[in-house]
Amino acid sequence: ILQEVSELHPADIAEILDELTTEHASLLYKYIGKEKSADILIELDEDVRERYLDSIGAKEIAETFIENMDSDDAADIMAELSDKVKEEVISHIQDEEQASDIVDLLSYPEDSAGGLMAKELIQVNVNWSMLKCVKEMRKQAEDIDNVYSIYVVDNQQKLIGTLSLKKLLLAPSTAKVEDVYFKDVLAVKAYEKSEEVANIMEKYDLVVLPVVDELYRLIGRITIDDVVDVIREEADKDYQMASGLTQTAESSDHVWALSKARIPWLVIGLMGGVLGSLVIENYEGQIQIHPEMAIFIPLIAAMGGNAGVQSSAIVVQGLANKTMGFDSIFSRLFKEFSVGLLNGVLVSALIFGYNLLFSDSWALSLTVSISLITAVVFATLLGTAVPLVLDKYKVDPALATGPFITTLNDIIGLFIYFGVGRLLYNYF
Amino acid sequence: ILQEVSELHPADIAEILDELTTEHASLLYKYIGKEKSADILIELDEDVRERYLDSIGAKEIAETFIENMDSDDAADIMAELSDKVKEEVISHIQDEEQASDIVDLLSYPEDSAGGLMAKELIQVNVNWSMLKCVKEMRKQAEDIDNVYSIYVVDNQQKLIGTLSLKKLLLAPSTAKVEDVYFKDVLAVKAYEKSEEVANIMEKYDLVVLPVVDELYRLIGRITIDDVVDVIREEADKDYQMASGLTQTAESSDHVWALSKARIPWLVIGLMGGVLGSLVIENYEGQIQIHPEMAIFIPLIAAMGGNAGVQSSAIVVQGLANKTMGFDSIFSRLFKEFSVGLLNGVLVSALIFGYNLLFSDSWALSLTVSISLITAVVFATLLGTAVPLVLDKYKVDPALATGPFITTLNDIIGLFIYFGVGRLLYNYF
Ligand SMILES: [Mg+2]
Ligand SMILES: [Mg+2]
Ligand SMILES: [Mg+2]
Ligand SMILES: [Mg+2]
Ligand SMILES: [Mg+2]
Ligand SMILES: [Mg+2]
Ligand SMILES: [Mg+2]
Ligand SMILES: [Mg+2]
Ligand SMILES: [Mg+2]
Ligand SMILES: [Mg+2]
Ligand SMILES: [Mg+2]
Ligand SMILES: [Mg+2]
Ligand SMILES: [Mg+2]
Repeated sequence: ILQEVSELHPADIAEILDELTTEHASLLYKYIGKEKSADILIELDEDVRERYLDSIGAKEIAETFIENMDSDDAADIMAELSDKVKEEVISHIQDEEQASDIVDLLSYPEDSAGGLMAKELIQVNVNWSMLKCVKEMRKQAEDIDNVYSIYVVDNQQKLIGTLSLKKLLLAPSTAKVEDVYFKDVLAVKAYEKSEEVANIMEKYDLVVLPVVDELYRLIGRITIDDVVDVIREEADKDYQMASGLTQTAESSDHVWALSKARIPWLVIGLMGGVLGSLVIENYEGQIQIHPEMAIFIPLIAAMGGNAGVQSSAIVVQGLANKTMGFDSIFSRLFKEFSVGLLNGVLVSALIFGYNLLFSDSWALSLTVSISLITAVVFATLLGTAVPLVLDKYKVDPALATGPFITTLNDIIGLFIYFGVGRLLYNYF
Repeated sequence: ILQEVSELHPADIAEILDELTTEHASLLYKYIGKEKSADILIELDEDVRERYLDSIGAKEIAETFIENMDSDDAADIMAELSDKVKEEVISHIQDEEQASDIVDLLSYPEDSAGGLMAKELIQVNVNWSMLKCVKEMRKQAEDIDNVYSIYVVDNQQKLIGTLSLKKLLLAPSTAKVEDVYFKDVLAVKAYEKSEEVANIMEKYDLVVLPVVDELYRLIGRITIDDVVDVIREEADKDYQMASGLTQTAESSDHVWALSKARIPWLVIGLMGGVLGSLVIENYEGQIQIHPEMAIFIPLIAAMGGNAGVQSSAIVVQGLANKTMGFDSIFSRLFKEFSVGLLNGVLVSALIFGYNLLFSDSWALSLTVSISLITAVVFATLLGTAVPLVLDKYKVDPALATGPFITTLNDIIGLFIYFGVGRLLYNYF
């Protein structure tokens, strides 16, 4: 079995190891070559990896894993270690270039272009001849699985263009880079947000993107596979927030982890429920006289919540995908006001028709329909405004979706319902 | 201005054109070369593109656009045309190979590997010499922006491996492909679901993936940029369903489109509200005697909804990302039961403490806490089971998130609340 498993793709072996105990995993690991072990390590679940690395020494971490990894993956793993272990591991790295690359990479925030980039890339100087390029490239290419792009830099290491492989092969070997290179190259600064990096690579269909420092000197490159992971993580995070989960929870996690991810929003929902109860308590006398008012409490609360979530989802997605268009915040709110009014009138008319058939209280029928329109319009506006405001103040707008906007609109809906009810019951 | 705009990247020009009227767009289009026009067309919003193509003839569509596009993009655009226009356009395509490629590609479902693939690729026969390879590749490479991989096929056109560019350059020109090619190659069948294609490319960090027919003959290749779009679309779709939107709505859409995407779930929420009202109506007598019971209606309804959405979100995401682990449905439900019980007990204890301080009705306090535990456990189980069952019957599990599970749990919560209330009020 060991033999068979060890012939699988690293990503598949990682999936199997994720399900094994640490001892079994260690056994399997011993059986697999160093290069492949390193490829597997980066694919493991974070907690499985942590447990495994805790069980071996800093020297082994350095020699078996860190030395055999691309610099970006090595830095990611190092970032997960404690400061003490990190230093020990660095001191055990034999390859000085790798050690210095990793120390460099560790200085960038995880969610920045610098946190995504690898130091391995192919670069040529603009003054080199084709012959010199080929010679230097052979050396550089040793570390690299996929070349993708050859970057052209000037004497100050500034990125000034790219060289196509075709040109390199067709041009006479005495030609200079400066005569044949392509001057148009898109790059990002190292402190650019990873979400922005993802947007750029997605929009321009890029497979690789060079990273430069403030002086436009080439310092690394980002490949699409790592950006795909960013896109997936961002989407998962927004989805989780919209569903009331506060952290990445997978259904294979343990009960306690699954519970912990849900408790914060449940408690906030509970507090919302308590606030709602205070609103109703305030009108308890009215319910005593007109107990039929209680009947539509959940309807009003639910509809406000639903309408609010719909609006905030559109805003959150528009902000994430940069498809907001050029409207100002006021024309956007006016548009949402129209949408809310349109939908509010529709659902109010439906429930009014229903009450016409089945209810004999004009006061109740009118109260329900009027407060439903009002609650839907309010919720729509709030669902639009809150994420826009959060985004303006650099808070993740996705926070404003799901349980938060639902709970808020529940309470507002109840206020409106009983407020309108008190007014109307005086007339009928 | 025309001059300046026309020098931008096609994706940027498309963004500008999306905001212009059809006449202005046409004007701009005339100014831009054919190759670039084609690149812009594929990046336009679907409705903008439709309006523009409606305004020009089939001949111009063929000559300006379809002839100058990659086969995958050309087929996507053709699929948007009416059958009549489609036939006309095909008859106007001069390049016979392109016409036949497009007809081929149009036969695959949009959400399959065939619907994602392009016909342009580099392939060599296993019996060729290096010299012949280079000669043939020069011809094939004319149509292709990025080579990525050289595929090796046998005499039956069956995909049997890949040839690395390095090998091609280093091997003597008389060497045969069969002596140097790499036999391990991952491919997908043409009718594989695009979600599965995305999972494979994501898992194995691929930039390009070959597509084969049932006989394993090479028929096309899928590039990562198109798969990134699939990943984004899938994530957006799930997010929208979780937020109660039935179709892709962008905040830049018109009021009517924005409203249409929301009405279905609002109406379903309304029907849920009506069902909830029937439950409460059933207990109206009880409310008349104990009006304080109305106070906690929204709390119970909201908490059931929140707990259910949390559970279903974890399942939906686990199914989409294939991180469900190997648990059976029963052990999964048991685990969720534990999570629900844990969280239910916690929030019930909190609200019991609150009621101990502020309420003087033992019956109410106990009713609220007991029904809260029950509702949370129920909602958790239902939130887990419903998407699993839908998935089993090949319905998109994401349908079971958001407003659906919330509404269902609202109603169940009310039943539990008043049921428990009726029982307990008899004792106190
Ligand atoms: Mg895993
Ligand atoms: Mg190195
Ligand atoms: Mg990193
Ligand atoms: Mg793209
Ligand atoms: Mg594209
Ligand atoms: Mg990488
Ligand atoms: Mg986000
Ligand atoms: Mg657009
Ligand atoms: Mg297609
Ligand atoms: Mg990956
Ligand atoms: Mg990876
Ligand atoms: Mg394509
Ligand atoms: Mg899906």
